[in-house]
Amino acid sequence: MLKTFSSAISPLLDRRSQGHSLPAGLYTRQDVFEADLDVFFHKHWIYVGLECDVPEPGDAHVIDLGSASIILLRDDDGRIRVFHNVCRHRGTRLLDSGSSIISKLVCPYHQWTYELSGELAYAPHMGTSFDKTCRSLKPVHFKSIGGLIYVCLSEAPPEDIDALERTMKERLAPYDLANSKVAFQTEIIETGNWKLTIENNRECYHCSSNHPELCVSFIDLDFGFDPETLNPEDREEAEKHQALYDERTRQWEAQGHPSAAVEQLVDCATNFRTQRLVIAGAGESQTPDATAASAKLMGTMTRKDLGDTHLWGHNCWHHFMGDHAVTTLIIPLGPDRTLVRTKWLVHKDAVEGRDYDLDKLTSVWIATNGQDAQLVARSHAGILDPAYEPGPYSPFTEGQLDNFATWYIDRMRANGY
Amino acid sequence: MLKTFSSAISPLLDRRSQGHSLPAGLYTRQDVFEADLDVFFHKHWIYVGLECDVPEPGDAHVIDLGSASIILLRDDDGRIRVFHNVCRHRGTRLLDSGSSIISKLVCPYHQWTYELSGELAYAPHMGTSFDKTCRSLKPVHFKSIGGLIYVCLSEAPPEDIDALERTMKERLAPYDLANSKVAFQTEIIETGNWKLTIENNRECYHCSSNHPELCVSFIDLDFGFDPETLNPEDREEAEKHQALYDERTRQWEAQGHPSAAVEQLVDCATNFRTQRLVIAGAGESQTPDATAASAKLMGTMTRKDLGDTHLWGHNCWHHFMGDHAVTTLIIPLGPDRTLVRTKWLVHKDAVEGRDYDLDKLTSVWIATNGQDAQLVARSHAGILDPAYEPGPYSPFTEGQLDNFATWYIDRMRANGY
Amino acid sequence: MLKTFSSAISPLLDRRSQGHSLPAGLYTRQDVFEADLDVFFHKHWIYVGLECDVPEPGDAHVIDLGSASIILLRDDDGRIRVFHNVCRHRGTRLLDSGSSIISKLVCPYHQWTYELSGELAYAPHMGTSFDKTCRSLKPVHFKSIGGLIYVCLSEAPPEDIDALERTMKERLAPYDLANSKVAFQTEIIETGNWKLTIENNRECYHCSSNHPELCVSFIDLDFGFDPETLNPEDREEAEKHQALYDERTRQWEAQGHPSAAVEQLVDCATNFRTQRLVIAGAGESQTPDATAASAKLMGTMTRKDLGDTHLWGHNCWHHFMGDHAVTTLIIPLGPDRTLVRTKWLVHKDAVEGRDYDLDKLTSVWIATNGQDAQLVARSHAGILDPAYEPGPYSPFTEGQLDNFATWYIDRMRANGY
Repeated sequence: MLKTFSSAISPLLDRRSQGHSLPAGLYTRQDVFEADLDVFFHKHWIYVGLECDVPEPGDAHVIDLGSASIILLRDDDGRIRVFHNVCRHRGTRLLDSGSSIISKLVCPYHQWTYELSGELAYAPHMGTSFDKTCRSLKPVHFKSIGGLIYVCLSEAPPEDIDALERTMKERLAPYDLANSKVAFQTEIIETGNWKLTIENNRECYHCSSNHPELCVSFIDLDFGFDPETLNPEDREEAEKHQALYDERTRQWEAQGHPSAAVEQLVDCATNFRTQRLVIAGAGESQTPDATAASAKLMGTMTRKDLGDTHLWGHNCWHHFMGDHAVTTLIIPLGPDRTLVRTKWLVHKDAVEGRDYDLDKLTSVWIATNGQDAQLVARSHAGILDPAYEPGPYSPFTEGQLDNFATWYIDRMRANGY
Repeated sequence: MLKTFSSAISPLLDRRSQGHSLPAGLYTRQDVFEADLDVFFHKHWIYVGLECDVPEPGDAHVIDLGSASIILLRDDDGRIRVFHNVCRHRGTRLLDSGSSIISKLVCPYHQWTYELSGELAYAPHMGTSFDKTCRSLKPVHFKSIGGLIYVCLSEAPPEDIDALERTMKERLAPYDLANSKVAFQTEIIETGNWKLTIENNRECYHCSSNHPELCVSFIDLDFGFDPETLNPEDREEAEKHQALYDERTRQWEAQGHPSAAVEQLVDCATNFRTQRLVIAGAGESQTPDATAASAKLMGTMTRKDLGDTHLWGHNCWHHFMGDHAVTTLIIPLGPDRTLVRTKWLVHKDAVEGRDYDLDKLTSVWIATNGQDAQLVARSHAGILDPAYEPGPYSPFTEGQLDNFATWYIDRMRANGY
Repeated sequence: MLKTFSSAISPLLDRRSQGHSLPAGLYTRQDVFEADLDVFFHKHWIYVGLECDVPEPGDAHVIDLGSASIILLRDDDGRIRVFHNVCRHRGTRLLDSGSSIISKLVCPYHQWTYELSGELAYAPHMGTSFDKTCRSLKPVHFKSIGGLIYVCLSEAPPEDIDALERTMKERLAPYDLANSKVAFQTEIIETGNWKLTIENNRECYHCSSNHPELCVSFIDLDFGFDPETLNPEDREEAEKHQALYDERTRQWEAQGHPSAAVEQLVDCATNFRTQRLVIAGAGESQTPDATAASAKLMGTMTRKDLGDTHLWGHNCWHHFMGDHAVTTLIIPLGPDRTLVRTKWLVHKDAVEGRDYDLDKLTSVWIATNGQDAQLVARSHAGILDPAYEPGPYSPFTEGQLDNFATWYIDRMRANGY
């Protein structure tokens, strides 16, 4: 019984059954983790940061993506650039994690020096025949979509990000993310596979029992329900929500605010879904009482009652509201370790203490992320158990997980696994 | 030189030489560790806990077995049940480690709810065509042998546990373990392979130099000696011990207390050995002065001088004495990490401070376990050294290690390695 | 896509391009790390310690070399002996790390007892037919070269260590290392591959920007420069240094002090280079002001102006100066973890506080090692990045890295990879 026989990923992909969670090995194995990194985090577009991370020329921001690291910077002409954080001499990291202000990029090892355009300007002792032009910093394919930075680390980025770009350019414009600022940021490491983190985010079946803070403003029934098994009271409430949702969507669309769901979920490389969601209760924002946290609204927004422009990708989820935005990305660190980085954005001129209270702004998602981390961990622990076998998704509340699993298998196949 | 060539376990098994310790790789390699888990901890019976861990209906006790986790519970009818601690929906752990009191088993993720019989009672939003009867909790094969819980995690448990059951049912009856209680519990993680932990337990060749506390009550010469190389004084003592042992065994058996050794060590799936051992010195118990630690005796015992009913398995060792019992199980956590969980049992009505002193009860095995952990660690460290080669077992004092190694190789072969 | 396909090391070796750093996998992969241990740390000579670690009969000193451990001891006749620290019974480590004074080597597990000659003297309970002569401690091939202990853990040590021995015996004689003492020792673990630690040590291209303390006494231009790209001022200084260096070497050689470079770098098993280097500034020693740290000179030295006898191997670097010596060895602990052990030697009769100030003695290399550890770590991090590709070595300042990489590939090939 050679261990290597079990190293083939393809039979695991074969074993996936429609409507069910994935075979255990796809969540737990080291070789699958490495394949996932290669396929989903190097060969697909991923969300990594924001234009407002580097507001001024000379601002540089290092974004760690597992073993990869990239530099997001704004050059002297005010243009965004993204480079691999790897010196072309002997591979040394050029910049440390976090933000810095620079005029050139100087490698601390042997002082190889690059312009903000990435060109190699200076490489001492390399001889007169050395051709510096071949040793510019390696650029990274990127797109700023309404101020959100998406990158693709491979040489051949999928072209179907165009749908995301087309859709979101218009929807994000009023929030003017480029002129927002990061009011707060958290990082947590979930002890579970990244696909469990995403599955957790793709359903709200678990919300009512696990997210009391979020459920003040978030309507879990938007994510589906089984009408036949609900008791009369719950069914009435669900139907009322649905009617409200239809009405609001019609109103918003009529007022020129695109709201209907747009999605690209299967048979595609770039996975996304957006929709303007109704905010419950006071209806303004994802805060403890559903009222706005920031008096100064985002971008050119003049109303607080335009709901929550929700956007998903395979490594991110975002909520854009009248007064603030919450944007989250994930990076797999191991088969059972996933970094979750969340940023809260407000208008760049909003002042803490005057325009917004930080605790009110952040407490709902800080609580929610913590609760989800526990769920993901206990989910991963159970899947590691030899007794685990793939279980059935609810056709009413977990359809997006089925889509995600289908897309996952397809993309692995499309990339040679 | 492909690394994968070295991943075949079979040549390592071939290399084992009778009368010698195992080739290094069988103690140290990750693939062997995984094979060991599969063969010895999933396909064989292992000891995992006690009836008295769940004395009342509704008591549940989670037992972690490496990446597996099982729930031992007592149902509403007072019957013991054992289930995999894995929700049938998406695999989430149902209960946390340790003990709890429950009326139903409710998964915290999406509220799937199971009866204490394991039946799925409630699964919201799964639709009217969903068949709950296929989604009961997976039961675990178990046997309560005189109050000791043995489980087999596979579908086809070895049948030859019958010999253990037949033998121990009678021998354990007077201790009435079901009506005992856990007075104390320890867990230590030894930094060595589980087979070294077992080898360490299978001989007392190391006792005289390493276990001063245990040697007050334990007679290492019971485990064999080389008569020809002992000096006259030591030989006389050894022979005296042997005579005493023969005499006591005869007396005990004549009084109706089964005492002679019964063993099933090779050519079998279920590995065990039991024997009533003579306690040295005051002769009552494994305590610092060999007198009983608990004034209230176990079960229906009326005498303190019935020695130590010793029982071994491939993942456990137990000592049942007039006043208390010590029961230890091991679970491999990695090639070089082994959990050792020890429980001290007394009569369920014994009261700490009145009937027994906790320190007197526990100090001998707390010290012994600590000493053994150090020996196992330095043994594992040496076996990791490229200079290690299998060494000879003493034919007088290490015969049980040879039996264990032979059984280990045979069972690996019998399971396809 | 079987993972095992990527486990072949040979294609990685093929991919190495002359004049460039190695392909990433050779620095980062687990299987390459294991091959490196086998080839470079078991089948080649490595420097491990000093005669003065065991000055008196009965002195024993355990040297941990990753998973291997050896005992350096001085027997009753005052001879050096080196044994594997592995009991021949069941593999237990005989001695703990560090130094001890012993009359016999007694295994703590079962009291097997060895003479300082390695002979097994006592093995209880092994029976009368047991042949002790087959169970002596396994000796390790070693050489004391001027008091430096080199070992080879394999059975067939490369013979070309003779060149190192011939060369250094004469050069080291005046320092009389056997009669020195270890005044201080540090251990740090660099979070990078061992070959990056060695590469870092093989060039001083990085010194001027990173080692302000070392550059007081160390002349980085000795390690090469590109005359055509230096500005006139720097070029003049470089040429002045070169002239000074030539003059000093001539003088020293004329006075009977061998100084010219001797090297065995490629087409050989044993990799070394030695040269008497000029010390800058005050010219005496690698201290903060380049004056001697110890008033009592090493061995039979009578002058402080004989420069720095520098010696390299593939796991060590040494500096022997008039007043003290600094000797460093490295041991790989993982693909990205390398132990760096540094000892500062002074005359055995030198007294701290009277003859030397410990801080003055040690501060330059403590600072330098810390700076290098940071450079190695950020180099390793960059090489782990999928964007890394091998970069060009400077033909003027990094020629020794090219030699080292060439030797590395050749030796891997010579050992079957």
